[in-house]
Amino acid sequence: MRSLQKATHQQTRLINQQLVLRSLYDQSAVSRAEVARLTGLTRTTVSDVVDGLLEAGIVEELGPGQSTGGKAPILLRVPDDARHLVGIEVGDSLLTGAIVNLRGEVRRRVEVPLDGRDGEMALARLDELIGALVEPAAAPILGIGIGTPGLIDTTTGTVRWAVNLDWRDLPLGARLSEQWGLPVHVANDSHAAALGEHTFGGHPPGESMVVIKVGRGIGAGIVIGGQLYSGEGSGAGEIGHTAIADNYRPCRCGSVGCLETLASTRAVVQRARELAPHAPESSLHASAGPERIDLDELVRAVADGDDLAREVLLDSARHLGRTIGGLIGTLSIHHVVLVGEMTRFGEPWLTAVRREAHRSALAMLADATSIEIGRLGGDLVVLGAAALLMTRELGLALSR
Amino acid sequence: MRSLQKATHQQTRLINQQLVLRSLYDQSAVSRAEVARLTGLTRTTVSDVVDGLLEAGIVEELGPGQSTGGKAPILLRVPDDARHLVGIEVGDSLLTGAIVNLRGEVRRRVEVPLDGRDGEMALARLDELIGALVEPAAAPILGIGIGTPGLIDTTTGTVRWAVNLDWRDLPLGARLSEQWGLPVHVANDSHAAALGEHTFGGHPPGESMVVIKVGRGIGAGIVIGGQLYSGEGSGAGEIGHTAIADNYRPCRCGSVGCLETLASTRAVVQRARELAPHAPESSLHASAGPERIDLDELVRAVADGDDLAREVLLDSARHLGRTIGGLIGTLSIHHVVLVGEMTRFGEPWLTAVRREAHRSALAMLADATSIEIGRLGGDLVVLGAAALLMTRELGLALSR
Repeated sequence: MRSLQKATHQQTRLINQQLVLRSLYDQSAVSRAEVARLTGLTRTTVSDVVDGLLEAGIVEELGPGQSTGGKAPILLRVPDDARHLVGIEVGDSLLTGAIVNLRGEVRRRVEVPLDGRDGEMALARLDELIGALVEPAAAPILGIGIGTPGLIDTTTGTVRWAVNLDWRDLPLGARLSEQWGLPVHVANDSHAAALGEHTFGGHPPGESMVVIKVGRGIGAGIVIGGQLYSGEGSGAGEIGHTAIADNYRPCRCGSVGCLETLASTRAVVQRARELAPHAPESSLHASAGPERIDLDELVRAVADGDDLAREVLLDSARHLGRTIGGLIGTLSIHHVVLVGEMTRFGEPWLTAVRREAHRSALAMLADATSIEIGRLGGDLVVLGAAALLMTRELGLALSR
Repeated sequence: MRSLQKATHQQTRLINQQLVLRSLYDQSAVSRAEVARLTGLTRTTVSDVVDGLLEAGIVEELGPGQSTGGKAPILLRVPDDARHLVGIEVGDSLLTGAIVNLRGEVRRRVEVPLDGRDGEMALARLDELIGALVEPAAAPILGIGIGTPGLIDTTTGTVRWAVNLDWRDLPLGARLSEQWGLPVHVANDSHAAALGEHTFGGHPPGESMVVIKVGRGIGAGIVIGGQLYSGEGSGAGEIGHTAIADNYRPCRCGSVGCLETLASTRAVVQRARELAPHAPESSLHASAGPERIDLDELVRAVADGDDLAREVLLDSARHLGRTIGGLIGTLSIHHVVLVGEMTRFGEPWLTAVRREAHRSALAMLADATSIEIGRLGGDLVVLGAAALLMTRELGLALSR
């Protein structure tokens, strides 16, 4: 009973600390008395918590504010760079890392190429990247947030399976945490992208949304009422490896017929390579050899109105659109945001995706749903991983 | 500011009342002092709330309990029949209503046939049903809970669209509430079925599950962490009208290619009628005429091992299974429960559904997911509607 009371006491302290920190973070300059008013905590409790935060350097005193009669109160604030966050995206051929401050501003970016599917090599590169980010520290590092493809148990930071790197039951979070002596939080890359979009895409805090990342792989992140929804098996939004009717293309996951084999960047490039030799009228046919066709060339061909390129693109868009129709019916969420490399195809792709999604879902639900291409840049996963870290460690929702 | 404080005060009273009522409902007999200990409220607050509940007749005094030294405390309990709940299922050809007590026991059942798609007629029959249920009242009626097919705004009790009865923007809850002077809560029938299964299916309180109702229509109810998930558009689980690739069968919703046109009871009966004339070896061929084939006959033919009947059934199961594979990938929930008329086909149908669901989802997620036929009887929607009513009105989760 004593230890239970002690635990409850510690919990209360933590909750109070987070309440105080949140009200300091949300205001640009605020006095202890004002924090007490905002949080409903006593002045003594607020003062105790603030003392701890001052000592830790997360909060600083700005000097006296306006007096309201008596002695002018000392104003407090959370400096933007009081802590630095390490955000990392594990991509298919690239590791991207950034030092992000408490306002989501990228202070430094480092990229390290990844080649092939060698999981051990990828871990070595990851160490290299973290080293390059944390070494010349301009501020104390709060921890590391990582977005990586695959099935991730976010609670423990374990990668249950990442097909691209052949990681299986890898305790990535624990391993890196021990090595660097820092808290580490790991999430699926699409989940991190959804957090990034939700945090920095100008959406209201409580909004629900589905963010679909369509690149070499395909995955979705689901935000319900402002919170990331992971599902019991941590695999929520795992739409890339859901079978599409009458499709028997082998997938890198070992199964056949997955959406990824029809709607990813790899799928459209491969399809264009298959068809180009038989389409002499296409600009893609003129390529030195069909195996030379890459995403850049396909994007260009679509923009130039090449029939073959557009046919390949629209076919892939139909499959994605039908899956989105299913998501609209299942989740009844009004905002779908598309991110990732496929969005480079722009308007023609988006139009075809929207048309098929609309056709595939109950009209009344589809009419209420917007499907848009995300307007944030390539740092979405990195920023989302940083946002995850900040929520988990400080109880703060990252905001600019 | 005064009115805000007043509102907060009333809110606090309501929360305290629910806390006290919950601890009384969860125990068979308990003293005021014990309630104070369980809720953390002061004895004075508990006594005040209990006085109100005694006066309203929701709580009764059982007499003195065991003394622990001083005066023996008076024990309290919530009598099982302190209030009666009206639970109603609007089916395709039948209205089913029941008087349910506070322990989910059905005290009385009334059925009224529905014919055709006449929405006005259905409303008249609904009045008739409610009249027959509330008139010879054995206990005060708490209110009415209704499960009905269609897109339902559960917050306002408005039927946005019910294709079977051609109800559009019908304020069903408000209308019945005014007429009967009782609180009325309305939910989609599959959502109500999910609440019913979650409440009475022997599942842990916080479990997540998808309940799929497969009958003349198809819909799912999603329970996440013990709470019904409705989605922003109230249409969560609306899988019956999601298009299946390369299917162009016209659906009663006005669209083409919906899952309902392939996997509902209507779909299999219709398909059997189409094929039977060309299958002289089938027992269905021998029917006096293919239009005479009905669900009963098809269930019998499958049980007898009739090839045509099994082919029709397994084809429908494959389509449903693929949709479930998509749900597993999207929601990552470990429990899928199938209910409704299609479950009469039993094992062969279930096996085919499971096989295709497993094939269609990422193996690691599918392996963790059980797909079972619900073991509760036909009153699932009625009980679920009563559970909804009880949660909304008393803040209690119905339990036996």
